[in-house]
Amino acid sequence: MTTQPIPTVTAFDWVPDFARGLVRDLRVRWAFEELGLPYCVELFGAANPRPEGYVARQPFDQVPAFTDGDLDLFESGAILLYLAEKHGGLLPAGEQDAWRAKCWLFAALNSVEPPISRLQAYNLFNADKPWANEARPSAEALVRQKLKRVAAAINGKEWLAGTFSSADIAMVTVLENLRSTDLVAEQPLLADYAARARARPAYKRALAAQLEDFSGPPPAH
Amino acid sequence: MTTQPIPTVTAFDWVPDFARGLVRDLRVRWAFEELGLPYCVELFGAANPRPEGYVARQPFDQVPAFTDGDLDLFESGAILLYLAEKHGGLLPAGEQDAWRAKCWLFAALNSVEPPISRLQAYNLFNADKPWANEARPSAEALVRQKLKRVAAAINGKEWLAGTFSSADIAMVTVLENLRSTDLVAEQPLLADYAARARARPAYKRALAAQLEDFSGPPPAH
Repeated sequence: MTTQPIPTVTAFDWVPDFARGLVRDLRVRWAFEELGLPYCVELFGAANPRPEGYVARQPFDQVPAFTDGDLDLFESGAILLYLAEKHGGLLPAGEQDAWRAKCWLFAALNSVEPPISRLQAYNLFNADKPWANEARPSAEALVRQKLKRVAAAINGKEWLAGTFSSADIAMVTVLENLRSTDLVAEQPLLADYAARARARPAYKRALAAQLEDFSGPPPAH
Repeated sequence: MTTQPIPTVTAFDWVPDFARGLVRDLRVRWAFEELGLPYCVELFGAANPRPEGYVARQPFDQVPAFTDGDLDLFESGAILLYLAEKHGGLLPAGEQDAWRAKCWLFAALNSVEPPISRLQAYNLFNADKPWANEARPSAEALVRQKLKRVAAAINGKEWLAGTFSSADIAMVTVLENLRSTDLVAEQPLLADYAARARARPAYKRALAAQLEDFSGPPPAH
């Protein structure tokens, strides 16, 4: 009997406070915790170049990259899809519900996250620029519009596609990027949904593991 | 023998010039043209409300939504994944290459498209606002950084994951959003890749079909 190597996800050993709990390896850790399966973490120093050849694994030089035996994957969405398809438990039963979950996985990453990332460009990365204040309202309006749609979709449901799925991992980690705003709280159905997800023991374990791994030195200035 | 109904994608019957050739039903049309399979289009008047119950099919009230027999899907990325998995021809052979294509499908939509959408917010939707000029350079820098990574990944390859795949449909339609800028032309490898894709007869047929369907009246002002 051959022992399968434990799947490995890449992550950082330090990020600034505003990014803690938001780095996308959290999605992969959360999926593993939901599945009750072991995973390894390959940590990179925030200030150091990535290992030789890393862009062949992760073309954008970001985390997470993911290795499972002979397979190399990148993009948290693809890794969530892979884990959901390989193991039971992160996709609802039934073809329509399973595809509903995959549709919502893409929706979280392509319909909801992009306007939130735009808003973060103003709130986090250019907060000191006067134009950021002027650019913010149109981005907030777009985020609000998307959140209303997600809130309407979750109305009367516990999870986006019936049972808890990879789509909920993606959506809730996307929403968490708004934690310094009131935009999620404005939609009580959505706030309840996110709180329900963050109350899951698997989320708490994944978050604790990410935070614990931030044990490296900050980059020297 | 039961005749299967022809799969249906939703689209608009009119959009402004700047959006023609960019609306996301093009991705679905392109996939069908590559597969050599028939599809139907359900057109919506640009100025009219969507049909009753449409948000149950497409929670963001957008196009495309997609129906194949009993299955309802939304999000162009999910529809591309569905068509690639159901029919041969839009995913490379071999597990690693097939997953590489799915990783690039997510990358196109979650790593490359979001900064491009942000740039479009300045170039198209807020072009008359003075702050848009000030906000543009940081968005352009981010787009440029992502495009360099994609250009490096395509170096020496014809397509992102070996053979032509759903990932190329997503990436090339994402890049097309930059058609009014020089950002793709700055990366010759990327410009060649996009030109190679747009030279495919299936792309030309899909684009012609979308443009031909813009036969409705513009919204009254």
